[in-house]
Amino acid sequence: MPPPPSEPSLEDAYEAATALAPHIVRTPVLGSRDLDARLGVSVRAKAESLQITGSFKVRGALNRIRTLDQAERDRGLITVSAGNAALGAAYAAQLHGCALTVVMAESAVREKRAAAAALGATVVTEGVRDAAAAFALARRLVAERGLTFIHPFDDPMVVAGAATATLELLAECPDITRLYVPCSGGGLLAGAAIATRAIAGHVELVAVQPLGTATLAASLEAGRPVSHRGTGTIVDALTAPMPGELNLRIISSASPGIRTVTDEATLAAMADVARDLRLIVEPAGAIAVAGVKADVADGRADGPVGVLLSGSNASWSLLTDVLRDSRPR
Amino acid sequence: MPPPPSEPSLEDAYEAATALAPHIVRTPVLGSRDLDARLGVSVRAKAESLQITGSFKVRGALNRIRTLDQAERDRGLITVSAGNAALGAAYAAQLHGCALTVVMAESAVREKRAAAAALGATVVTEGVRDAAAAFALARRLVAERGLTFIHPFDDPMVVAGAATATLELLAECPDITRLYVPCSGGGLLAGAAIATRAIAGHVELVAVQPLGTATLAASLEAGRPVSHRGTGTIVDALTAPMPGELNLRIISSASPGIRTVTDEATLAAMADVARDLRLIVEPAGAIAVAGVKADVADGRADGPVGVLLSGSNASWSLLTDVLRDSRPR
Repeated sequence: MPPPPSEPSLEDAYEAATALAPHIVRTPVLGSRDLDARLGVSVRAKAESLQITGSFKVRGALNRIRTLDQAERDRGLITVSAGNAALGAAYAAQLHGCALTVVMAESAVREKRAAAAALGATVVTEGVRDAAAAFALARRLVAERGLTFIHPFDDPMVVAGAATATLELLAECPDITRLYVPCSGGGLLAGAAIATRAIAGHVELVAVQPLGTATLAASLEAGRPVSHRGTGTIVDALTAPMPGELNLRIISSASPGIRTVTDEATLAAMADVARDLRLIVEPAGAIAVAGVKADVADGRADGPVGVLLSGSNASWSLLTDVLRDSRPR
Repeated sequence: MPPPPSEPSLEDAYEAATALAPHIVRTPVLGSRDLDARLGVSVRAKAESLQITGSFKVRGALNRIRTLDQAERDRGLITVSAGNAALGAAYAAQLHGCALTVVMAESAVREKRAAAAALGATVVTEGVRDAAAAFALARRLVAERGLTFIHPFDDPMVVAGAATATLELLAECPDITRLYVPCSGGGLLAGAAIATRAIAGHVELVAVQPLGTATLAASLEAGRPVSHRGTGTIVDALTAPMPGELNLRIISSASPGIRTVTDEATLAAMADVARDLRLIVEPAGAIAVAGVKADVADGRADGPVGVLLSGSNASWSLLTDVLRDSRPR
């Protein structure tokens, strides 16, 4: 058994930032007086929804793939994804001239599958029931074909890449009191922990999870990754079977708050973001806003708070339904 | 009769940029490989849709109102608007502690009226049939009540403020070959002319107008502002009766290309922007993209080209209709 991977350092994150800069968007941090009034707290929204490939996932994928050696590249790459990690990896693989196979569940959002294929990835979905089955199939293909596995979230270089989003937010908004981060596999949250603990120890992290796939509280309590027993969620990007081991270790040391929110609350937040910030986000891209609302409802209204709008690759039909059913401001 | 106002200089525009910086968003310049592929040319989109108050108009309003003397402020301000100028002026008036009256046509987008009122403006619409009637009523109120008139587009300080959007775009994208600019009263285009002629003479300007309110070609030909005789347009922000005199003079010296586009093309561009750039824009905010498409269809596919996504204050029902009727990528 290989030794457990070591945690990335702040230096790893800054090195990632420098390496990624030519290839990604420095996404804007946006606010809205309407949103602040609606939520009851001042919000600084890091719009990773405007990131290339439509989510923050490209940061980790690029940082991982750039550091592969030639032999690893030549064997071809494989990853597992609900969609956004696939898009990020496909972009990174294309940039570095590597072949990429992506294993996705059959239920993956159609547009995400199509976009990954359009970026040159070989997308495998047949017979893949869910995320756990996708991981199992990918491990088998690695064993059979010798492909290089790119973990979608539980890898030091992926975490260091994800950390760059938080570094950018902190550079613009050093005054935030809390940072709300969508959490499933835990890469974005682990990255936020690496970034904040080194340079912004006053910032409290809040993990936000869908009620139907919540794993973090049980995992932190058990001291190891625990799978969810929820009923599923419409938040397709937050359906990892459990948090990564490395990520859980990093997250544990940051002692984040945890908010679980209903799908209804997440969809309402999608409408809030569209109406007030004029951004199209997917459910995972809005869930941090739902977490802020839940905290304010509980009396935690001090701010400003940061939110990571993690992505925008929404199912078009879901998006148009949500907007049609929402009210104008 | 007062002497004709003098053209703002590049120095006026840079002075505006410095003065406005603390109060506005430095909006991102965004691109999308999907959009580039769809349009057939590389596009750099300046997202003024993400500007505070939802459009570039706040730049001109702030720059005008900050330079008023105390007596002018104390008399109270008045402006005319289809909506975005009202919002910009309301924000600026609030910042400087001035009372503001806004005259808008009865047909103005409901959300724009509500938002101007929410920012403290007194909104007058009763009996105001169209933009020409709004100007007439505002002039009467100026005469009767001694209010200080803030022209929504034809004023050197308003143009200098608008020019800052183009300065920001050029600073990030000095390599654009053409810049597509929505045009009605002509303030944004005149600002673009001031900015490009001084520091980016290689950039060709292209004015984009709705077919139903196209005034620029006839006005340039006549050498004076000429009203449109079109059938109207769904592009509510581009319904000024005619270009401003000062603006026409500045624009004339820049010899811009002119594109008139159908409302159908503009609505299709709204969907393109939502789908590929993940931004919500109003019709005027999308019309420059429709202009690019028309040029590419005519074989002008060299780029990269710049577009000014001027605003995002769409009628929510129009927006949701447009998105519902569009296809996912």
